Order: sequence, then structure tokens, then C-alpha cells
Amino acid sequence: MKLELDPDRLFPVDPATRDVARGLYAEVATLPILSPHGHVDPAILLHNVPFLDSAELLIRYDHYVTRLMHAAGVPLTDLGIADSLSPAPIASPREAWRTFCAHWHLYAGTASGYWLQHEFSVLFGIDRHPDASNADALFDLIQTALATEAFRPRALFTQFGIEVLATTDDPMDDLAVHRALVADASFTGRVVPTFRPDAYLNPAASGFADGVARLAEWNGTAPGSYRGYIEALAGRRRYFVDHGAVSADHGVLQPLAVDMPASEAAALFERARGGALSDVEAQAFAGHMLLEMARMSVDDGLVMTVHPGVFRNHNTDTFRRFGPDMGHDIPVTTTYVDPLRPLLEKFGNLPDFHLVLFAVDETAYSREIAPLAGFYPSVYVGAPWWFLDAPDAVLRFRAAVTETAGFYRGSGFIDDTRAFLSIPARHEMARRLDAAFLARLVREGRIDRPTAERIIVDLVDTLPRKVFKL
Amino acid sequence: MKLELDPDRLFPVDPATRDVARGLYAEVATLPILSPHGHVDPAILLHNVPFLDSAELLIRYDHYVTRLMHAAGVPLTDLGIADSLSPAPIASPREAWRTFCAHWHLYAGTASGYWLQHEFSVLFGIDRHPDASNADALFDLIQTALATEAFRPRALFTQFGIEVLATTDDPMDDLAVHRALVADASFTGRVVPTFRPDAYLNPAASGFADGVARLAEWNGTAPGSYRGYIEALAGRRRYFVDHGAVSADHGVLQPLAVDMPASEAAALFERARGGALSDVEAQAFAGHMLLEMARMSVDDGLVMTVHPGVFRNHNTDTFRRFGPDMGHDIPVTTTYVDPLRPLLEKFGNLPDFHLVLFAVDETAYSREIAPLAGFYPSVYVGAPWWFLDAPDAVLRFRAAVTETAGFYRGSGFIDDTRAFLSIPARHEMARRLDAAFLARLVREGRIDRPTAERIIVDLVDTLPRKVFKL
Amino acid sequence: MKLELDPDRLFPVDPATRDVARGLYAEVATLPILSPHGHVDPAILLHNVPFLDSAELLIRYDHYVTRLMHAAGVPLTDLGIADSLSPAPIASPREAWRTFCAHWHLYAGTASGYWLQHEFSVLFGIDRHPDASNADALFDLIQTALATEAFRPRALFTQFGIEVLATTDDPMDDLAVHRALVADASFTGRVVPTFRPDAYLNPAASGFADGVARLAEWNGTAPGSYRGYIEALAGRRRYFVDHGAVSADHGVLQPLAVDMPASEAAALFERARGGALSDVEAQAFAGHMLLEMARMSVDDGLVMTVHPGVFRNHNTDTFRRFGPDMGHDIPVTTTYVDPLRPLLEKFGNLPDFHLVLFAVDETAYSREIAPLAGFYPSVYVGAPWWFLDAPDAVLRFRAAVTETAGFYRGSGFIDDTRAFLSIPARHEMARRLDAAFLARLVREGRIDRPTAERIIVDLVDTLPRKVFKL
Repeated sequence: MKLELDPDRLFPVDPATRDVARGLYAEVATLPILSPHGHVDPAILLHNVPFLDSAELLIRYDHYVTRLMHAAGVPLTDLGIADSLSPAPIASPREAWRTFCAHWHLYAGTASGYWLQHEFSVLFGIDRHPDASNADALFDLIQTALATEAFRPRALFTQFGIEVLATTDDPMDDLAVHRALVADASFTGRVVPTFRPDAYLNPAASGFADGVARLAEWNGTAPGSYRGYIEALAGRRRYFVDHGAVSADHGVLQPLAVDMPASEAAALFERARGGALSDVEAQAFAGHMLLEMARMSVDDGLVMTVHPGVFRNHNTDTFRRFGPDMGHDIPVTTTYVDPLRPLLEKFGNLPDFHLVLFAVDETAYSREIAPLAGFYPSVYVGAPWWFLDAPDAVLRFRAAVTETAGFYRGSGFIDDTRAFLSIPARHEMARRLDAAFLARLVREGRIDRPTAERIIVDLVDTLPRKVFKL
Repeated sequence: MKLELDPDRLFPVDPATRDVARGLYAEVATLPILSPHGHVDPAILLHNVPFLDSAELLIRYDHYVTRLMHAAGVPLTDLGIADSLSPAPIASPREAWRTFCAHWHLYAGTASGYWLQHEFSVLFGIDRHPDASNADALFDLIQTALATEAFRPRALFTQFGIEVLATTDDPMDDLAVHRALVADASFTGRVVPTFRPDAYLNPAASGFADGVARLAEWNGTAPGSYRGYIEALAGRRRYFVDHGAVSADHGVLQPLAVDMPASEAAALFERARGGALSDVEAQAFAGHMLLEMARMSVDDGLVMTVHPGVFRNHNTDTFRRFGPDMGHDIPVTTTYVDPLRPLLEKFGNLPDFHLVLFAVDETAYSREIAPLAGFYPSVYVGAPWWFLDAPDAVLRFRAAVTETAGFYRGSGFIDDTRAFLSIPARHEMARRLDAAFLARLVREGRIDRPTAERIIVDLVDTLPRKVFKL
Repeated sequence: MKLELDPDRLFPVDPATRDVARGLYAEVATLPILSPHGHVDPAILLHNVPFLDSAELLIRYDHYVTRLMHAAGVPLTDLGIADSLSPAPIASPREAWRTFCAHWHLYAGTASGYWLQHEFSVLFGIDRHPDASNADALFDLIQTALATEAFRPRALFTQFGIEVLATTDDPMDDLAVHRALVADASFTGRVVPTFRPDAYLNPAASGFADGVARLAEWNGTAPGSYRGYIEALAGRRRYFVDHGAVSADHGVLQPLAVDMPASEAAALFERARGGALSDVEAQAFAGHMLLEMARMSVDDGLVMTVHPGVFRNHNTDTFRRFGPDMGHDIPVTTTYVDPLRPLLEKFGNLPDFHLVLFAVDETAYSREIAPLAGFYPSVYVGAPWWFLDAPDAVLRFRAAVTETAGFYRGSGFIDDTRAFLSIPARHEMARRLDAAFLARLVREGRIDRPTAERIIVDLVDTLPRKVFKL
């Protein structure tokens, strides 16, 4: 079956509205890509070695892709993912690719299907839908391409038009890769680290005690010193700032901020190191630390991004055998108005403090996030995240937030991906959907065409630069 | 006022998109009806006696219809429904029908209005909107039709093209009607029972103690034996399987599953028989039994369907006077991720276990159900249920789940109706809406036409056969 | 940049559907405005003095407008709003207006932007978008207009075609302004008060003890007499009824109704006067009083409107400095089915009792409010409120409630505004959106054109008259 991209994809179906969308999209189609939040490994750009194969590149590490095959009954080992509790052999890359091609129909209508279709067609010139019969030929075709200079990571970075790419990093990471990239005169792209301290702030996280000990060691203070712990975190943030970081990212189950006296925090900290906190105490301490992170952002200027509402590793057996990021992270109801209040009471009105609120519970967009961002100078509406980063969800998002918060309280698009090859597909999708949304408003007489032309450039370029202080 | 059906009803308004929808619909318009979950009384097919009159057939037992007149201030007795606390006479069928016709405008834009319009036009050839002036004529017209051979239940079953029809049955039902239907060589349709054990599992249900006693008696064990209770339930499920059942259905307020030791369950069971459980204990026991039902489904292969989130009989006075199913069952917020976890931890990864999750809280579709079904091989997204089984709600449903779970994690359409005459209208509606949704995706360049053609057949035919093991 | 209104604004983009919408809108475009709930100060109509200036009229008191500039970092003092904790001077009206014009782009796509655009164009004949360069000229242009007879409040009342305008009033207000308006033969409009007793019912409200004391004094009973308190409230309601009131309005965080014995209520009341209730007790007492208000509505016929779900004054610093209604009232999750049940158990089935349920948590529309209104004769679905009173939100609302409750369980449009000049823009918007929604249903073959023509007149005229007993 033939695979070809519709040049008008994602534009509204009404001809006159489509025409407006086409025009608006043209204004931004070739603007540089700003990617202020994502999960690409910077080492691929430093070492610039060719990607291994299509399974490694497009399947193995993309839990958006693996989860739908898992749901269809395919064992993860058949996708080349090792089971740490079983010595049984795993599929070779070619076998994994064949399995994927035989299940390609599962992705119709999904965000992943859309992006993959784009990558197949635009990057590799593939003009047939993958299926069992052409799997080997496609594997070889991609393999041949990956061996060329044009498919080396740096060449793609340039070809994609990426101006800024943020990675996500452990607070104790020495950022040597980032430093080496800056030092490398042959690479002129801007790759910046992001401070992601979850495991150092939440006593319930595995590795909390170890992380705390490493912070203390680095800081030269006693492991049990709460003041040293706070100093170390501030110090590591400065280290990230010195290495170009623009934001600190926080993944929490609920966006709970707790305002407690330092003495109470110190007492909880002491017991947390020994794993002695109750669930409620651990939540309170983590909530206190979220507030501390806000305070530090006010000091050091790092944009604070909060990604709440995901129940991680829902299936214990899968987690034990295959680890995290295996597709069983599931959204839960999330609220912001009450839990974040202590933080907003303290810092909400400071315009230089930037707090970007993401959501996987889309009911919060119109009810809580847009109203908060429509009042607090610090609050920005995060772009649709994770499961919501898909065409219909993005249009629902725009409709849900714009009438309350307008266009100028948004973060701009975030690709949030570890799938390097999908970056242009994702940004192009976002731009097309912005054009589609604006075109409808133009045709409904709600904004005029020149206003829409100004807005789409601001959405794609001005806002992410401003919100992420790029 | 003239009543006529638009041949393009429910298709998108944009002409080119409508054209695609028309083509897609044509692929499935005449496929047989698979109805794996519903509430039709099988006796009407066994005895094949003519329906009584239009009020009995279309109003009296359809709480979708009666509730809107009740809201308009019409006493239920005016619709022919007896008040058990009052000896006052109730309306005759003709009077009830007149009342309905005088209130026909209330149904404009509702799902019931849509289905009734279809039934009036397609089945009875009615070409005027009902109103006070033509009520008697319409009553007589329908009466005349119902007296003909063509309107006997079996003739309609054939005319409707029903291949499979599932009923909903009490676990202690002897299924004599189903057996007689199978034995009747003159009826070749497939009518299968469904195991619906709510009242036998929930200590808070009226009749729990009696039900438990009847199970014990059937099983030949002591009423107080927890082991006998579990054996009896498993035995009754096997009895249903032996009579053709393909699924067990569970109506619960919240989809809570609780993993507790058998000894603890046995202790709660003992006290539950005496009505001595607290609310929290009763919920825990019912949650435990939901998990037990999943375990039995793994054993006996019955598909497990869960219909949660409805507050039943919200108005006590109405319940006392008129009983259940009187239109005052109201949805409440429903979550799945936390409460169902113990069940999914145990059985979620078993591909032969089928768990279909329905919802009346549509916020759960994109947030919880689609992500769960996009990972767990056992989990399927139930078709829009009850209040959500209507054109706009169905399109919202498709948009909410498809981008995360694709098209292949859905249950296929379920008509869930006790209104026999509405079955073709409902299935036609579902097929038209599938065509409408797919046509938009085609025109937005997200899937191509041949892919859409494959998908619509899978939605209407392949998936319900697979998910319900038909 | 040119500013002009599209004559087809808010109609669907598909040409044939737009054509239907145009025709439906024409049926209601010139019907009189019924405004049964809002916040206009009746004194402006009594005294009929010219409005001061554009900042006073359009910015200063409109928290929809000020909040987006606050979010952009503009101090409220720059908008002419005094900071009670600081003696620093505030902006002059002209300066505030300049600031607004420089931020005009923030409002693109918002409800406020849409209404202001309408007001600028239709009322003032402005044909350029406001910006920094034309701010002074626009200020002067509006100033000149406001000085004319045609822009006096009474002239606008007539020009707008307002038939009924409800204000919102304190229970102890003597309604002298309303009385004077009725007595003034030169003013023939109907301006009615609304009973808004929140602060007298909720022990947690500031001023509760004072309010209770004033009620007692008016009633001539002891301040500590619970019976006197109830009598006084009933008496003040009768006073409002005698002055033309048609409804009583209730702003509560959650729509909680509590059924408690009078003796228990009296005991709580005694302690509430001394501020001695716990939070839980205060909520219970307020819930009890909501039920009492329903009981009184049954007696005196006042329509009961409930506006729940808003966290008021989220930012303490802003509240201390600038007071309430400063844009930091934020919606929270709201449920109705459980909390309102005691009230509906008692009064839900009384058709002469009218209970209008509003929402800022739009998830409640399809899940709870429409199903409740689709059964209880007393319950009506409130028009989209506050943040949801915007084009896309209104269409989502219609789609969410209509399939369950039809068109005849709605309240009709409520402008709920203190911005007098926005009243025609808001009603026009509502009518255009009704036309847009109905046109889509016509073109999708779900209702026919004559039915749609009947419905739109009922929505705009028949229903608000009936629901609000006008």
C-alpha cells in the first residue's frame, strides 16, 4: 500500500479555511527549531557516530511505539528489549523491525503513527506502508541511509534546522558531554542541559539516600546536614547555569507545594535519609522541596517546569523485568489550584520567575491552568504533553486555554522527545496545528488575518525564547 | 411538520469530507449486527408474540424516554407506570402515547430523539413529526403495523440482520429460555446469555444474603461457607459458558479491585451475610470479589466487562414508588488507574483475559482508559456508554482515545439496549459516526483512504468478534 | 491595523452550514434582551449620569480585562487601581488606557477581546485596532462620545433593547434605588433586584457575625435566636419579592446541601456567631442553609441559582492590597450528584421550584448537570459561566448537554456582567452561537430546519422567561 504525505495535512477540511491555514503555516514553516525541553542523549551529537539500525533508532527506545505492540500481545523481548529476570534470547534488530512492520496498522490515527509516517517519507523517501512483506527491504533501505554522512547526528541536527536543543540531566552529572560540545569548534549548535532533581527531592524515590549522600560529598558537608543539602542543590543548579542550562524540570505525581519551617524540614530530612518517613511525611517533604526549588529559581533564574500527574511503572512485573519507561506510565487526575497555592502565594507575582505547568489530565487546561496563567505573571501554560501531544488533543488544548489566557501565556511547543529523528515531524505538526487553529478563528471572524500572522510567529519563535529565556 | 431522514445524516458537513464518509459507510452499511451486550428480554424471541402497542414498545420501558417527560413535569403514572404506593389509576397506552407526542419537541437533539426518528421513519414509514394533533392517528398506524407478521420479534430479528444478540441475566437464572431458543429449529439466530452477578458480590446490594443462600443451596454447600460461595459462582459461570455465554458483566460504583487473603475474605463474608459490614468493609469485600471475577475469567474465558460510575436511584421517593431504571441514575466522577491496579498487577498482561472498561465520566477516556488499553494486552476500551452513546459524544470519544490507543484497542460498538426496535438505529448511528470520524482523518491527511476502508470493517466486524470471542 | 467586524462572525466555516446559521440568527437577532442575572449597578440607570471615561468604563472594573495585563507584568496601580497598603500614586485614566492599548494583542482569541472588539466597532465606530500610537486619539474619541446624550445609561438601555435587567444585591439592601427607578415615570425599563445572601449563610465568610446581627435587628429578634435568623432571611426574601426580585443567587465553593435537625442547626448557629466553628462545622452549617434557601424558594417562588466551584482570592497579597474581584478567582473541580442530593431528595421533584446549576468545571456538564436536569423537574442547566462564556466553550457546552438533556432544560443565556456596555455584545454572541450549533445539527440531519427555527426562539426568549419566571 502506497504511503505519501498530504501537503495539506492537519489543515482544516473546509477549503477556504484550509487556504488561510496554508498561508499562516508558510509564515513559520522554515523558522529554526527551538527545543527547550527534551530527552535526546547529547553524546550522539558529541561522538556523531552513525545510528545502528532502524530498530535501535525507531523502536527499541520509544515507549510510545513499543507499548502498542505490547498491548497487542507482543512480548517486549520480541522487540529487542532484554528481560533482566530471564536469560532467554531477545530478538535481533531485524526481527524486531519485522514485528513492528507486521503491526504497523496499530498506529493508524495515533501520534506515533503520524510522526513515523513523516520520518519514513521525508527522511528516508519510503513510499510504501510497512508490512510483513516489505519489512526486510525497508530495514535494508534504512540501513543504507544510516551509513551515509547525511544521516550522522550532526548532519541531521543541521538539516533539521535546530537552533537550541535542551537535554535532561541528573543534578550530579558532570556535564562533560555538554562541555565538550561547547569546546568543539566543529559543532556550532546550541545544546543545553536541564536540571532534573526528582530523585534527590522525593524521599520515596529509589536512590534518594544515595543521591543525598553524593550531594553532601560534592558539597563537602556532612550527609546529615539539611543546610548542606540545600546548599548543594543550589550549588549544582549554579553549575548547570554555568553550563548553559535554562530550566529545571520537576516530575511529580501531584504538583504539591508545602510551606514548612526549615527546622521541620531539617527534622524530616534527617529521618528521610534513613527511609523512616511515612507516605504523608514523604509527600510533605517533597512538597517542601518543590517550594525550595521555586525559591532557588527566583534566585538563579532557571525556568521551573512542572510535569505532574503520571503514575509511573503501573505494572510491577514489567518494571522488574524491563525497567522504567516501558509504556506503563498512566495519567491520573491532577489538580493545581490548591496544591500549588503555597508556591504561588510566595512567588507567583514575580514576573522574572517563570513557572511552566504541564498536564496529562486535560480537564485542568480550561479549569485551572489557563485561569492561573491568566492572572499570575510567573505562570505559563505548558504545551500539550505526552499523550496529549497529538493533533486532536492539541486543538482541544488550544480551544480550552485560549479563550481564558489568550495566546501569550503559553510556553510555545516542547517536543519532549528522546526520538531524535522525530523532532522535525513534531515541530512541523505543532506549527501546522497552530495554523489550523488560527485559520478557524480568522474564518469565524474572531481574529483578523494580520493578527493571526503576528500570532503564529510569536507562538513558534517569540514565546519559547521569552518563556525559556533562550 | 414533515419528518424525513437525511440520507447523509451524521456525516461531516464539508462536502468533500462527506463524500469520503459516504464511501466508507457503504463498506459496512449492510454487515450483520453483532450485539454482544444488551438488555433485550429473550422471551420475546422465544414466544414471538406481537408487541402490544406503541406506548408499551417505545415509551413505558425506556427510561431514556420517560426521564425527559418526567423532567418536564409529567407524572410517571401519566406514562402508564404504576405507583406502588398509590392506588390512583395510571394512563392507558393511548393516553401515554398522546402525552409523549405532545412532548416530542423535548427530544430534538438527543440520542433518543435521533433513534426514535429513525424508527418512526424506517420501520413504520411515518412522515410527520408526532404532535398532539396526530397522536391518535400514529398510535393506530403503529398498532396496525404491530399486528402484522413482519413486526413479530423474530421477523424483525431477521430483518435487522442480527447475527448475535447477548442478553443480561441473573447468575441463578436457569437459562431455560436460552435453551429453548437453541432447541427451536425454527429460530436460527444466536442469542447468548451474559453473567451479571452484581447483587451476589456486593454486600451492600439488596438481596445479597438471599442470593448467597441460593448459591449455596444450588452448590450443596453450607450457606456460611466462603469456599462454597466461590465454588458456586465458578459453577454458575460454567453453567453460563455451557449455555453459550461469552461475557460476564459488572456494574459497580467505582471500579475498585482489592487483593486480600482468602482468610480475610472469608471472615468478611461471614459477617456480610448478617449485614454486619461497615461501608468500608463492604466496599473492600466487593472489590475483592471483582478481583475474584477476573481470576475466574482467566480460568473460564468469559470476557469481563465493567460498567462503573453510575449513582443508581438518586431519588428515593421515585425509587420507592416506581422502582429502579426510572431515569434517575446519574454519573459520577470515576477513576480507573489506582482502583483497578491490583487486578491489572495480577492479570493485566494475560492476552487471553479480556477486560472491557466502559465509562460515563468521559474525562477518563483520554486520561486513563486509552493509556491503560495502550499498554495492557487484556484491556479494551469500551464503546461510549449510556449518556455518551450519542453522536457528538461518540466523536469526542473517538478523538479522545484514538491518538493514544489507535483503533485496535476498542471493543467495537455495544448497543446496551432493552429497546429492541432501536437496535438497527443504534448500530447504523455507530457506523455512520465511524465513517464520519475516519473521513475527517483521511481529509486531514492523517490516514489514507485504503487504510480507512480497512479500519471501518475492523471496527464494525473484526473487533467485536475478537474482543467478545464470538 | 484595521478593525472591522465580520458580519458572519461565529458562524460555522462550511458555506452551506453558515448559510443555515445566518438564517437562524436572523430569527432572533432583534428580539429584546432578557438579562435575569448580572452585576450592573442600578444607580447608573437611576442617576443617568454620563460615564466618566474609557478606562473607568472598560478597564478599571472589569477583572476579565485587568487580569491579563497583570499576568503580563503590569502592576494593577498602572491600571488606575489603588493599592490600599501603599500611598504611591496610581495611573490616570488616560495613562491606564494607554497601557491597555499597548497590550491589546493579549486579548486576541479571548472572550473579552471579542466583546471589546464588538463594543469598539458597533458602539464607538472605531475602525483601527488599539495600539500605543493611537491610544490618545481613541481615548479622546470615546470621551467625546460619552459626553453625548446617546451614551447616557438610559439611552443605551433603550438602544440595547433591554427588556429586563436583574442586579445582584445584599439581603439588607433597602432597594431604594430599585424603588426609585420604579417610581420614575421617565424610565420604563424593568430593573429587578436579586437576593444574594452568601455572607449571611456561611460562618466562614468575613462579616458573618455582623450580617447576622443586622438581620436580627431588622427582624426585632435577639441576635442569638436561630429562629429569628431564619425568620429574618425569609422576611428579607419577601422584601425582595415585593420589590420585583425573581431569583436568589448562591455562590459557594462546593454545592453542598446538608439536611440537619433544627436543634443541631441552632446549636451550630450559636457557636458560629462567636466564630467558634471548625471548618467542617462551618461547611455543614452553610450546607444546611443552602437547603433552607431551597425550602424558602419553594415557599416564596424565588428561582434558586447556584454558582459553585470558584476559589476566591487565590493570592493573599493581591487581596490585601486591592481587594476582591481582581482576577485571581480560580475554578476548582466541582461535583453535584452527591453534595446536592439531600436538597434534591426533598425538593427535586417539585416543578414550581426552579434550581439553576452553573459550572466553571466543564466536566460536570455531560457527567452530572445534564443527567440531573434530564430527570428532576426542578433542575435547569445554567448557561456557560465566567471562563466558559466564550465561543468555543459555549459550543462545547451545547454539545455536552444537549444529547442528554435536549434544548428545553437550559436556563437560557445569562450575561452575568458588571460591564454594562458589553451586554449587547454578549447576548449577540450567545445568539450567534446558538445559530451555529443548531445549523450544524440541521446539516448533519439530526434536526430539521423548522425545528431549529422553533428552538432558537425558545432558547433566546421562551426559556429565560419560563425558567426565571419573568
